[in-house]
Amino acid sequence: MKEECGIFGICSSKRVAHDIRLGLFELQHRGQESCGIATSDGDNIYCQTRMGHVLGSMTDGVIKELPGCLGIGHVRYSTAGGSKIKNAQPFAVETKYGPVSVAHNGTITNAEELKRQLSQEGALFQSDSDTEVVLHLIARSKQSTLVKAIKEALPKLTGAYCLLFLTKDSIIAARDPLGMRPLVIGKLPRNQGFVFASEECAFRHCNAKFIGKVSHGELVVATLGGLERQQFAPATKSCHLCVFEKVYFARPGDEQYTSRFQSGIQLAKEYSYLKADIVIGVPDSGVIAALGFAEQSGIPFRLGLTRNHYTGRSFIEPTQAKRGIAVDLKLSPINVVIKGKVVIVIDDSQVRGTTGKKIVRMLKKAGAKKVYLLLACPPILHPCYHGVDIPNRNSLIAVGRNYQEIAKKIGAEVVGYLSIPGLLEACGESEEVEHCTGCMNGNNYDLVQITQ
Amino acid sequence: MKEECGIFGICSSKRVAHDIRLGLFELQHRGQESCGIATSDGDNIYCQTRMGHVLGSMTDGVIKELPGCLGIGHVRYSTAGGSKIKNAQPFAVETKYGPVSVAHNGTITNAEELKRQLSQEGALFQSDSDTEVVLHLIARSKQSTLVKAIKEALPKLTGAYCLLFLTKDSIIAARDPLGMRPLVIGKLPRNQGFVFASEECAFRHCNAKFIGKVSHGELVVATLGGLERQQFAPATKSCHLCVFEKVYFARPGDEQYTSRFQSGIQLAKEYSYLKADIVIGVPDSGVIAALGFAEQSGIPFRLGLTRNHYTGRSFIEPTQAKRGIAVDLKLSPINVVIKGKVVIVIDDSQVRGTTGKKIVRMLKKAGAKKVYLLLACPPILHPCYHGVDIPNRNSLIAVGRNYQEIAKKIGAEVVGYLSIPGLLEACGESEEVEHCTGCMNGNNYDLVQITQ
Amino acid sequence: MKEECGIFGICSSKRVAHDIRLGLFELQHRGQESCGIATSDGDNIYCQTRMGHVLGSMTDGVIKELPGCLGIGHVRYSTAGGSKIKNAQPFAVETKYGPVSVAHNGTITNAEELKRQLSQEGALFQSDSDTEVVLHLIARSKQSTLVKAIKEALPKLTGAYCLLFLTKDSIIAARDPLGMRPLVIGKLPRNQGFVFASEECAFRHCNAKFIGKVSHGELVVATLGGLERQQFAPATKSCHLCVFEKVYFARPGDEQYTSRFQSGIQLAKEYSYLKADIVIGVPDSGVIAALGFAEQSGIPFRLGLTRNHYTGRSFIEPTQAKRGIAVDLKLSPINVVIKGKVVIVIDDSQVRGTTGKKIVRMLKKAGAKKVYLLLACPPILHPCYHGVDIPNRNSLIAVGRNYQEIAKKIGAEVVGYLSIPGLLEACGESEEVEHCTGCMNGNNYDLVQITQ
Amino acid sequence: MKEECGIFGICSSKRVAHDIRLGLFELQHRGQESCGIATSDGDNIYCQTRMGHVLGSMTDGVIKELPGCLGIGHVRYSTAGGSKIKNAQPFAVETKYGPVSVAHNGTITNAEELKRQLSQEGALFQSDSDTEVVLHLIARSKQSTLVKAIKEALPKLTGAYCLLFLTKDSIIAARDPLGMRPLVIGKLPRNQGFVFASEECAFRHCNAKFIGKVSHGELVVATLGGLERQQFAPATKSCHLCVFEKVYFARPGDEQYTSRFQSGIQLAKEYSYLKADIVIGVPDSGVIAALGFAEQSGIPFRLGLTRNHYTGRSFIEPTQAKRGIAVDLKLSPINVVIKGKVVIVIDDSQVRGTTGKKIVRMLKKAGAKKVYLLLACPPILHPCYHGVDIPNRNSLIAVGRNYQEIAKKIGAEVVGYLSIPGLLEACGESEEVEHCTGCMNGNNYDLVQITQ
Repeated sequence: MKEECGIFGICSSKRVAHDIRLGLFELQHRGQESCGIATSDGDNIYCQTRMGHVLGSMTDGVIKELPGCLGIGHVRYSTAGGSKIKNAQPFAVETKYGPVSVAHNGTITNAEELKRQLSQEGALFQSDSDTEVVLHLIARSKQSTLVKAIKEALPKLTGAYCLLFLTKDSIIAARDPLGMRPLVIGKLPRNQGFVFASEECAFRHCNAKFIGKVSHGELVVATLGGLERQQFAPATKSCHLCVFEKVYFARPGDEQYTSRFQSGIQLAKEYSYLKADIVIGVPDSGVIAALGFAEQSGIPFRLGLTRNHYTGRSFIEPTQAKRGIAVDLKLSPINVVIKGKVVIVIDDSQVRGTTGKKIVRMLKKAGAKKVYLLLACPPILHPCYHGVDIPNRNSLIAVGRNYQEIAKKIGAEVVGYLSIPGLLEACGESEEVEHCTGCMNGNNYDLVQITQ
Repeated sequence: MKEECGIFGICSSKRVAHDIRLGLFELQHRGQESCGIATSDGDNIYCQTRMGHVLGSMTDGVIKELPGCLGIGHVRYSTAGGSKIKNAQPFAVETKYGPVSVAHNGTITNAEELKRQLSQEGALFQSDSDTEVVLHLIARSKQSTLVKAIKEALPKLTGAYCLLFLTKDSIIAARDPLGMRPLVIGKLPRNQGFVFASEECAFRHCNAKFIGKVSHGELVVATLGGLERQQFAPATKSCHLCVFEKVYFARPGDEQYTSRFQSGIQLAKEYSYLKADIVIGVPDSGVIAALGFAEQSGIPFRLGLTRNHYTGRSFIEPTQAKRGIAVDLKLSPINVVIKGKVVIVIDDSQVRGTTGKKIVRMLKKAGAKKVYLLLACPPILHPCYHGVDIPNRNSLIAVGRNYQEIAKKIGAEVVGYLSIPGLLEACGESEEVEHCTGCMNGNNYDLVQITQ
Repeated sequence: MKEECGIFGICSSKRVAHDIRLGLFELQHRGQESCGIATSDGDNIYCQTRMGHVLGSMTDGVIKELPGCLGIGHVRYSTAGGSKIKNAQPFAVETKYGPVSVAHNGTITNAEELKRQLSQEGALFQSDSDTEVVLHLIARSKQSTLVKAIKEALPKLTGAYCLLFLTKDSIIAARDPLGMRPLVIGKLPRNQGFVFASEECAFRHCNAKFIGKVSHGELVVATLGGLERQQFAPATKSCHLCVFEKVYFARPGDEQYTSRFQSGIQLAKEYSYLKADIVIGVPDSGVIAALGFAEQSGIPFRLGLTRNHYTGRSFIEPTQAKRGIAVDLKLSPINVVIKGKVVIVIDDSQVRGTTGKKIVRMLKKAGAKKVYLLLACPPILHPCYHGVDIPNRNSLIAVGRNYQEIAKKIGAEVVGYLSIPGLLEACGESEEVEHCTGCMNGNNYDLVQITQ
Repeated sequence: MKEECGIFGICSSKRVAHDIRLGLFELQHRGQESCGIATSDGDNIYCQTRMGHVLGSMTDGVIKELPGCLGIGHVRYSTAGGSKIKNAQPFAVETKYGPVSVAHNGTITNAEELKRQLSQEGALFQSDSDTEVVLHLIARSKQSTLVKAIKEALPKLTGAYCLLFLTKDSIIAARDPLGMRPLVIGKLPRNQGFVFASEECAFRHCNAKFIGKVSHGELVVATLGGLERQQFAPATKSCHLCVFEKVYFARPGDEQYTSRFQSGIQLAKEYSYLKADIVIGVPDSGVIAALGFAEQSGIPFRLGLTRNHYTGRSFIEPTQAKRGIAVDLKLSPINVVIKGKVVIVIDDSQVRGTTGKKIVRMLKKAGAKKVYLLLACPPILHPCYHGVDIPNRNSLIAVGRNYQEIAKKIGAEVVGYLSIPGLLEACGESEEVEHCTGCMNGNNYDLVQITQ
């Protein structure tokens, strides 16, 4: 399943490029293909993008080229086709409102349609990225200021997105009206400014304190003077955060840890009839759910699978045929833990079933007596209406198969999934946050939004 | 002085990427900073740009990524500031007329003004290049076809430019109404198609035959069906080719060889009173003028300076302070030729005088009794109205100094320049080709054009 | 503390280079600086070494250059000074016995002395590596065969070492008489040959089955015909494996998992009076000990520190001053787990105390009420007599401080170490394997050996 | 034909690494495959080698790693097989005499035999280079000092060689007893020290003054105290410099210019019956001969072929099949000079005839009425007894063909070679310098040497 991009921004009273680098480093799990930083020194915007990992490509030499106290950064995931430096973000453009740079996480579902329309009106498209559409809408606005132009442009978009704009003297953050992608706000110590990030974990190195989330449909303008917050679209009753942010995309910050631990507890309740010698997790996120499961069930938690830290950019081509090898390189079983045991193994989710099959085989080879594979997530049955790259239905293992059939295909004695209510309970569903589970139940919240 | 870019295009019935690579290789002297190729297979446009030399960066692997029988290429020179991959050409964009790619040689002198205006109307600028302006003008046209849109856009430009556009099924070539930059047309053997290039020397490897030049103010559309030629602007009485194309920028093809050889003959006529033991040239272009000088004067030509072939991308930073070292690395004297001799040394032109000073010192160190430095070009006294990057007047050695003063500053016994009439005679001034000598006499042909 | 190198070899009936690459990948934790593979096709030995990680540098292109069914590989750790490609192994040399390649894990403690002596006799040294000494001793032997020459040479060495030699038609494995470094033997499926590796975990991808260890003082010659085993030195009563192999160097295979889990149990017994809300481990090896501690103590295990997977080759220079940042980038706390809790945190060992201090600070910042740091290893008090790179005594935190003083320096409420008997109990001390704990108690087993 | 390596050394009172870089740059034409520098600061020897050109690979960063006031450098040519970094020189080794580094130009013809012998005695060989043999002979000497050991070792070698040794406090230069390879000595200004180089052209940047050549069979020890000169072998009556050093390998310094110019004069005398419109040279060395030819014959010299400066490391694989393309990329004809003319074209020499054929075709395509190809060198008919890599006799175009047959094969109306006496006359044959022309007449001077 498609990973997401990560975005990060700081508005400070000190040079920011190094802190953006460290922030992006903490968001690296959201995208490893390319990275980039744009900064402003009040007069000009500087922008550097590179293919590859933050630590390898954003060297001290690159950081030196990025002066200024305001800046945004981006780490990008992409499918093979779009893997080019020209698609790396932030984008930096010149508009009538002055220089603007933008970093984007999410998918604009009506990008193609808007592109066609803008093209007819004379817009030039230079990348394959849907982010460029946003810039064109803004550039073509008749509004007197950039903020007004952004407010005019964003309601024309559908899909899930978070955006950070950099101008010469401000950072402007925006989150889609459904709130499907996360965007959090931090405050630097000693009133030195503000920080935005896809995930709170990115606040560590600049010592920012979490002070809230950008609301759904909200625009937040950060300058050294402070934050100005306004709605660019009527907020729906509640935010519809993509449930995968908690289950899969995000690194275990507090919320994610809690959700994942709770999902393990829920799984243990729903599968309380399963008896096993040990419970293990698939690193990294399955481990947290496994701890919750162990806590609730009393079955001892063990470290049965370890993760290799040196996979990085691999010599293995990313074709489906070779995906099995990637799993083999990434994970190793500890035989002495597994051998002769009835093992419950918990993974965060299951899409095609390729990884699951491989893990079951690995555990059996390590001597497991029986393997019960539990997923801390309900079956994926539908495409994502908001742009997450879920494969064709034919490739989804849960489509057209009951759990026994899946277990047979995977080679496990039992396969079980968390129920949707169980997941929502674990994720802390509330009046304010109602998670999007469209890929599990087929609900399309864009329709909800339009008909509201 | 700024070197120029080089452009090349083929419309053929066979795959063209490799032939474009070889064509660009022959134009490498016009720009060594970046290079790029765009091709079309009838459905899509593919584009690859790289920093560095053609042979080092346009590898077989890159060529493989460029399918199709139509294509254009570009080699780029730039000042340090603009030395970025995002400025490398060809640009490839998506417009309402479909995908378009463009390669540009020259300078659009009203680019900033047009940029401001287009920005106001909502255009987004993504590079520092003036080429992007052309694309925006085209994209915003209300015309029904791309060719009509180009015809509408080009008359809005001032300056010196040659452009090659690539569409899915054609190459469109255009040359500015003054004809300041060169663009020649070739025909492939066995009616296999057409070729465009900044200089005829680029035709060698694809065996194309020179069939003419793109006229000033002309648009030529090449498809496999043939060439369609039309004026996009009324042609001025004569073409105003930048005289530096013959004196300096171009590699010695037939015309350049003749002009340079003739300029040596003219110099010999104008400085017939100079007596010397030998005449030598500063490689490469000064050598041809020196041969002409020897022919006319009877003073024997010798190889007194050799050029090192391994300078390439240097460890020496391109600052003025270190420019002297670059000359030292590039040229070596042959002492036995120089020692004890009165030497006439001919260089193609003189801007700041830095190189001249260095060469005189080198020859004196090698034992020259006297050094007479002759320039196969008149003194440079004015900025270029058409965008060639001539330094500030204060840096021009010929401004505010007579020839004796220059000789003193340079350290030579004599410094002499070719006269303007002498240069025009050498360049083959005619009714059809009237050269631009604005940097020597201050004439601005754009004004001519406007008031015609 | 110095990590160790990793070695791997296969004698097979199929091409082996790819399998060596996968084997080295699994040993990557033992050295990330350089890697190399040498293979033999029966006629020639081919050798390729590269700086950097296995997956990034041993590409398919490199593998193609390595034909043959026999081969050895090496991953290398080194201190900054010796970080050069010429020190990368395997070494490939030409001797009177034919071409020989060698890969070495360990330190030859009398290398300098032997080097001086060999130099006097006319030996040329081309690297800084002590491995070259072994090759010279062999090359100078008067013995009739390579195996005899090796048997003559090895007894002249002191220190801890494992060696894999590659000849045109065999692999020769040797382990030092004390058995301080590990070397295991595996058998390929369907009698296709034999495998050697520093750790059993490297057997996975070639499906080799563990069939034993190379004994201390033993030489094993592997050909397709089978294994020939002989002693090159009298075996001491028991093997004296460096206890750090289990505590620190090795990846958790079965033995390491068991030792680490047991060391957690021992720690829990020795510190049973400590009351805490949770027990957490420092990834990766501290986690296993923490699980053992939790099991024994009943204090719940939690995931309080996560490890970032994208550190790889860092932009941070490896100076002591910046070591703190490296810890910060590598580890992240999960606040919700830590906040308000009395936390027992278990790390594998403590040398300078830099990491410990950083971790305690990180946990306090995350809200820990109290932090008790327990080390699954006794205090390090002495230099290593066998060449492990332990810093100067002045830098060792445990030298000259009692536990309270260490706790104060580290910033923890309590610091505790496992006792030596506790560690030996955990490591499974027996008649056959008596661990070397020289760095903890000052015992020098080389003396033991000599006086035996 | 194999190019030669270039060597350079300085013994100074200032840091030398940068000056060695510039010296190697001037010797780059002798080898472009790899380069390296070794320096001594009195205590240690530092060595850096790189693949590729001097300017691209010996960056300021590398130079910084090379402290000290003494140093040697090397540029290397090699055939494809030996193109590896481990063969790059200087070699730096540790011997009983202390650290020694060595740079070598030439071929030791009995290297294989010595290698076998040394191997038997226990020497280890780590490279494919014959230079290593020299080091082993030295290391094994029983002499009390390095200089004595070198004097003992060199007489055991046959072949053509020049060597520069670097010790902690001296540079030791040696030239083979026949004097087949060149090695010149320079003096730095203000008594700051001494310089050695393969060619005098390398003295320019450090402002050294040529003070003589290392004699054949001579050893020169340079320290800050001065030069100590002694014979390590009885000097033959005269030096037998490889005639190709003047004809082909060397850059046109004074001697080379004179020889080449004179060879043109000789050619004009021997072919005075040839009538032509113009005479042109094949760049670079053929041009000088063509100038001499023009001077003597009165036929006007023209620039008919220009050389492209951007070939460098090429995308074209170095196979015989593609060699033709390399010529096409390297040279361009100037049609206007050639068209309709009877052209005498002079190249420095002819081995296989591939280049000649290509040039004739190029000139004919450019419109030449007739092409007379003259070679400023006699026909190559024999292998080189001193190690220059001349191809198999079957590939030599002059073997088994008379001049008419060669002309027919090449496509020229006439092919003519300089006579051997003519060449020796041009090269300035004298009592002191008697050139080796073994490849033309089959004489083997080693035999001469042995029987003297």
